[in-house]
Amino acid sequence: MNQQVNLVTLGVEDLKTSRRFYSHGLGWTPLLDLDGIVFYQIGRGLALGLFPLADLGADTGHPATPGSPFTLAQNLDSPDDVDKAMQRARAAGATVLKEPQHAAFGGYHGYFADPDGHRWELCHNPGWSVADDGSVVLTAVEAPDTEG
Amino acid sequence: MNQQVNLVTLGVEDLKTSRRFYSHGLGWTPLLDLDGIVFYQIGRGLALGLFPLADLGADTGHPATPGSPFTLAQNLDSPDDVDKAMQRARAAGATVLKEPQHAAFGGYHGYFADPDGHRWELCHNPGWSVADDGSVVLTAVEAPDTEG
Repeated sequence: MNQQVNLVTLGVEDLKTSRRFYSHGLGWTPLLDLDGIVFYQIGRGLALGLFPLADLGADTGHPATPGSPFTLAQNLDSPDDVDKAMQRARAAGATVLKEPQHAAFGGYHGYFADPDGHRWELCHNPGWSVADDGSVVLTAVEAPDTEG
Repeated sequence: MNQQVNLVTLGVEDLKTSRRFYSHGLGWTPLLDLDGIVFYQIGRGLALGLFPLADLGADTGHPATPGSPFTLAQNLDSPDDVDKAMQRARAAGATVLKEPQHAAFGGYHGYFADPDGHRWELCHNPGWSVADDGSVVLTAVEAPDTEG
């Protein structure tokens, strides 16, 4: 089975609220905005969908249940970019779960939750880079000594 | 805030079980495989992480809860490719939630759940294509008349 993902679909309680958060609050441009589903391009050949949780369950043939068993992350170029993105999310009405701070893995990150509790990490990771061919280069970096 | 996702992290109950499913069952090559977290490249500049649910909660500063409020999807070139990918997932021990079938949106798709219940859609969507520059072209296609 191919090692790929093309679409991440978030189940939402109220599509109007979620659309307002992403399209207006965060200022994202929809790829396709229909009455019952909204898509955003979030990478090369990659889209994010917003779809009512009940419809998402119906589509799979099994009820979809709320929860927070995953996170979506943006890797940014600097701690300052993390701070700015978090300011924008906060202004859009996001719930800040973790204020931007130095992270155990050696980078700088914070978390917020969207209107449905879906969790986003805003992250500067010095061990993450992307080669010209799109390959992710990921190395475990030594955490700063925060104990001493 | 940028319109991008670089990392999708799935909270898992038992990392060994999940690693076995993705690395051995599905045959995926890890990008980085550490004791406590595993990463796979799943797109251009995009990675999937497997991380214990408790650790994912601790990292965000708030407990992460199980649930199925989202799906990950692969878009494939043909219905036959959907069938083949589902066979591979089934052989890997996935729970098939929806056998591959014609879909309301005009394509052909099925769903399976990984060992933690995370849901994957395998999909052929005639209305989905990716331009040379990576732009997703997504059009609502007319569903086949399955009522008549």
